[in-house]
Amino acid sequence: MTSISLKVLLCLAVAGFPILQITTAGDPDILVDYIAPDKVDGDFFTFTGFRTLTHPPPPTFTVTKASMKEFPVLLGQSVSYAALQFPAGSINPPHTHPRSSELLLLVEGTLQVGFVDTTNKLFTSTLKTGDMFLFPKGLVHFQHNAANNFPALALSAFGSANPGTVSIPSTLFNSSIDDNVLALAFRTDVATIRTLKKGFSSK
Amino acid sequence: MTSISLKVLLCLAVAGFPILQITTAGDPDILVDYIAPDKVDGDFFTFTGFRTLTHPPPPTFTVTKASMKEFPVLLGQSVSYAALQFPAGSINPPHTHPRSSELLLLVEGTLQVGFVDTTNKLFTSTLKTGDMFLFPKGLVHFQHNAANNFPALALSAFGSANPGTVSIPSTLFNSSIDDNVLALAFRTDVATIRTLKKGFSSK
Amino acid sequence: MTSISLKVLLCLAVAGFPILQITTAGDPDILVDYIAPDKVDGDFFTFTGFRTLTHPPPPTFTVTKASMKEFPVLLGQSVSYAALQFPAGSINPPHTHPRSSELLLLVEGTLQVGFVDTTNKLFTSTLKTGDMFLFPKGLVHFQHNAANNFPALALSAFGSANPGTVSIPSTLFNSSIDDNVLALAFRTDVATIRTLKKGFSSK
Amino acid sequence: MTSISLKVLLCLAVAGFPILQITTAGDPDILVDYIAPDKVDGDFFTFTGFRTLTHPPPPTFTVTKASMKEFPVLLGQSVSYAALQFPAGSINPPHTHPRSSELLLLVEGTLQVGFVDTTNKLFTSTLKTGDMFLFPKGLVHFQHNAANNFPALALSAFGSANPGTVSIPSTLFNSSIDDNVLALAFRTDVATIRTLKKGFSSK
Amino acid sequence: MTSISLKVLLCLAVAGFPILQITTAGDPDILVDYIAPDKVDGDFFTFTGFRTLTHPPPPTFTVTKASMKEFPVLLGQSVSYAALQFPAGSINPPHTHPRSSELLLLVEGTLQVGFVDTTNKLFTSTLKTGDMFLFPKGLVHFQHNAANNFPALALSAFGSANPGTVSIPSTLFNSSIDDNVLALAFRTDVATIRTLKKGFSSK
Amino acid sequence: MTSISLKVLLCLAVAGFPILQITTAGDPDILVDYIAPDKVDGDFFTFTGFRTLTHPPPPTFTVTKASMKEFPVLLGQSVSYAALQFPAGSINPPHTHPRSSELLLLVEGTLQVGFVDTTNKLFTSTLKTGDMFLFPKGLVHFQHNAANNFPALALSAFGSANPGTVSIPSTLFNSSIDDNVLALAFRTDVATIRTLKKGFSSK
Repeated sequence: MTSISLKVLLCLAVAGFPILQITTAGDPDILVDYIAPDKVDGDFFTFTGFRTLTHPPPPTFTVTKASMKEFPVLLGQSVSYAALQFPAGSINPPHTHPRSSELLLLVEGTLQVGFVDTTNKLFTSTLKTGDMFLFPKGLVHFQHNAANNFPALALSAFGSANPGTVSIPSTLFNSSIDDNVLALAFRTDVATIRTLKKGFSSK
Repeated sequence: MTSISLKVLLCLAVAGFPILQITTAGDPDILVDYIAPDKVDGDFFTFTGFRTLTHPPPPTFTVTKASMKEFPVLLGQSVSYAALQFPAGSINPPHTHPRSSELLLLVEGTLQVGFVDTTNKLFTSTLKTGDMFLFPKGLVHFQHNAANNFPALALSAFGSANPGTVSIPSTLFNSSIDDNVLALAFRTDVATIRTLKKGFSSK
Repeated sequence: MTSISLKVLLCLAVAGFPILQITTAGDPDILVDYIAPDKVDGDFFTFTGFRTLTHPPPPTFTVTKASMKEFPVLLGQSVSYAALQFPAGSINPPHTHPRSSELLLLVEGTLQVGFVDTTNKLFTSTLKTGDMFLFPKGLVHFQHNAANNFPALALSAFGSANPGTVSIPSTLFNSSIDDNVLALAFRTDVATIRTLKKGFSSK
Repeated sequence: MTSISLKVLLCLAVAGFPILQITTAGDPDILVDYIAPDKVDGDFFTFTGFRTLTHPPPPTFTVTKASMKEFPVLLGQSVSYAALQFPAGSINPPHTHPRSSELLLLVEGTLQVGFVDTTNKLFTSTLKTGDMFLFPKGLVHFQHNAANNFPALALSAFGSANPGTVSIPSTLFNSSIDDNVLALAFRTDVATIRTLKKGFSSK
Repeated sequence: MTSISLKVLLCLAVAGFPILQITTAGDPDILVDYIAPDKVDGDFFTFTGFRTLTHPPPPTFTVTKASMKEFPVLLGQSVSYAALQFPAGSINPPHTHPRSSELLLLVEGTLQVGFVDTTNKLFTSTLKTGDMFLFPKGLVHFQHNAANNFPALALSAFGSANPGTVSIPSTLFNSSIDDNVLALAFRTDVATIRTLKKGFSSK
Repeated sequence: MTSISLKVLLCLAVAGFPILQITTAGDPDILVDYIAPDKVDGDFFTFTGFRTLTHPPPPTFTVTKASMKEFPVLLGQSVSYAALQFPAGSINPPHTHPRSSELLLLVEGTLQVGFVDTTNKLFTSTLKTGDMFLFPKGLVHFQHNAANNFPALALSAFGSANPGTVSIPSTLFNSSIDDNVLALAFRTDVATIRTLKKGFSSK
């Protein structure tokens, strides 16, 4: 596409038009080889944001993403990565990815993983270095580095350029959902809900 | 859309991204090269059912299909053909294909073609030999060889292995729909409906 | 797969279901949660256009839609509604939806419904209040309130934000298709076609 | 893209054409009209399981589904229904549907509804009878009948024959996830987790 | 569906196999009838670029395309054509189409065709006038008019508006890939690679 | 694939029925959480086949896959992995993946990578440890460890459970394509083709 259609797009954007969503559906083919500005070279297809993973591990659980936001060429390619760094004892709390399954590969350390399916059945595994685990699309899952002394590093592949993340604890307790609704939902009292919310209030 | 993703889009636009082309979807992949019995050779990928088209043209409008029923390898390949043979003055009556657009190529003769879109607008064209016409998926369309003396031959390509055909006249008047329903629908009387039905009763 | 769905499959097989062609057909994902202007609140996700359905019923058959045109957030969400109001004796004439199946739920009254498949077979049912009927994508179907004294109200769900409607009578007789083409198609004479067209000319 | 198509695009933009809609995808087609045993009639396309909704409302929040499990013809049709009955003060606790957006139509009463997107933003609305609300695919949402004396009835349409449900409270507290994992995730102690689990233990 | 596949399915079900997920792919829908500027007539749906095929055949192998670049209405319709003209003895060198299968129909002459699947198995056929051959998506294939005196003409239908072409010889030897890489890949020396490259250098 | 489904498949093959490989489409949603035999636990979602990567590196370029063949739960999940081990100086020869883009992450060493798009433009990059590169779906690409002394290890993520591989050199020179066809295609003589073929004949 030439620069002229580009201007059209700019126009649309300036006018507040929701161009974003022109974006294709996640998985069907796009009608071009790739989506790129007019003059690109090999750098456009290269992402260097994971070099930092070789640095000393962070003090808390940390996710580093390579999705279409960080690496624009992924738009329309139906694939992305995330790197998960777990200090000893840390957790990636229960969450879902609305737009993709996740295939986790444990690169370093050990990891307790699990997910719950739509019939409420829990599936767990204790992964050793080199093991993989599949978390199906949209299901609640978590990972826990139960080791006392060793960090863990995992790479996760996704079949979408933008899998999205719904973190359950902060979705529930850090998003202003009404206390009564939560108390009814969790079969507890408002006081307990408020206590739980406090744990997330500083963030 | 969140403001953050909007900014990303703006960025993309400023950077000269042809976002527009993200656009429409192609065909979902199957997970294998092709679907076939265990031991096949090149014959499985070859279809000879169109050789008969070189014979003398038939006396009435005739469709010869190469879809997944006649040519099983097409299952999962999202493409098929039909050959349309029009004696002088004949018609392919109004119909739809529920599962694919149709790209008609006129190989011999001339042809009047048309379709009606969902806003009830009619689009027509008079095709010469070598011309193509696109009938969008699911819309009512027809072809008419208005020539007095010459047959016409068209090839139609479809983006589905089984586009399906809903022939409007026989769907309405040769399928036992209640006479009153049809009279109400066509704003006429039951007698007229019965007369119309008689035209299809012998088949 | 859980054991429960497995049993369902077994059931299907025993019942003679041609599961083979099942092909799942979910919806392709969009790459964002939803498509919206920059600053929206809950109102953007709320549609009030069906409140009028509680008013006195209209004197003629009336469709009220909640598709992406009336309710923009539906773009990319693959779902929409229509409300169908039938005065006593009225009809929703034969039509197709090119982009979605229709799942009709009868909320009030009784209703005669039917569709014709691509093998020209008619399927009909007489619905009571609370019943549902499935009209497959792209096939010709109709509904008729055969009651003398009572109106009927139906809600239809669609698996597309813009199913589209091809009304057969007006597509044929109110869109300028050539009289000769129609006469040939319906195996009648031009005079009959012109009479039928008059029924639609005032609109 | 060549200049010719470019001009077309320009044209589109200048003409105010909704280029946007090129975009999102609908539902992939199945390759047959419908999936059914060999000999079926109109009954196969009819579902009577919602007649019970006209009975006295149940004492607790109740979901009645018409998905492919209850209504097998829906397999491959990308649409389904659920009916939600809310006694006064009752709640449908936070949950997600992994395979479809939900378009809820409030048929009776009033309803507080809300969902949280992947940026942790809460969207809420207070629905009156006749109103609709859209819950995007895979996002956490809930409904609450805050009325003291009146029940509420909602119908929900889905763009999948099997949207699936992940109920957050029971997924977390009634599926055997390790207490320590939950305590870490919700930033509380194991005692609080055990108390919450008790609320779900009798079920 | 025939009874034979039914039995197979029964077999699958009895064996506990989750048949549900069998499923071939169709084409995702667009959300409008067609993509066009505001005011178009039948000409917009008509393509005349193949009239030239009736002229004297070209002296070398020639491809004439009717894809979305040449015929913009095809955008979103998942179908396109190409015409292949083969002088006596000419070849369409090994290539792939990344976005669609190809269904070739031989209109005139004879043609040697073949493709290699992902298990490295070669499938060939000798086509007579009127025959078709299916080249699955993304696989390397070729056509050769082995006749000494007669030209051949083929029409190819694609299930994508922009199938794309990767011509293997020019991709390898006319795109500046490093000589050492090619020598290693083809298990030969750099001198041989340079000789091969010269064959493509004048173009 | 588990042994039980294997038997079923064998059965099908013996019956000559082409169902087997129908499987799911790559990208559209499946209608269940995951595809599994009746009674599975967390082991079904765990893959241990990459533990061997920690062993001494192999003497030649080696690919280890985790696709649906090696890890059956991936069927329907649209994601898979491959590990690529490059001894010093080794190459992964030019190839394509017909069903997915590839997102390569360099875990160890350095790597020269490149691909050629459908306009015959070459894109290359020299990756350092931690870098990623995107190879678009269906395009010819290669990787070369140009280091004299150090091995390289890369992980590749795919947006399909079965991306497939078309290795260009062996597709051309180890699949019995006619020597004349190849000579014409590569603009050389039959003797050169035969010499090239010898390089692949021992395999």
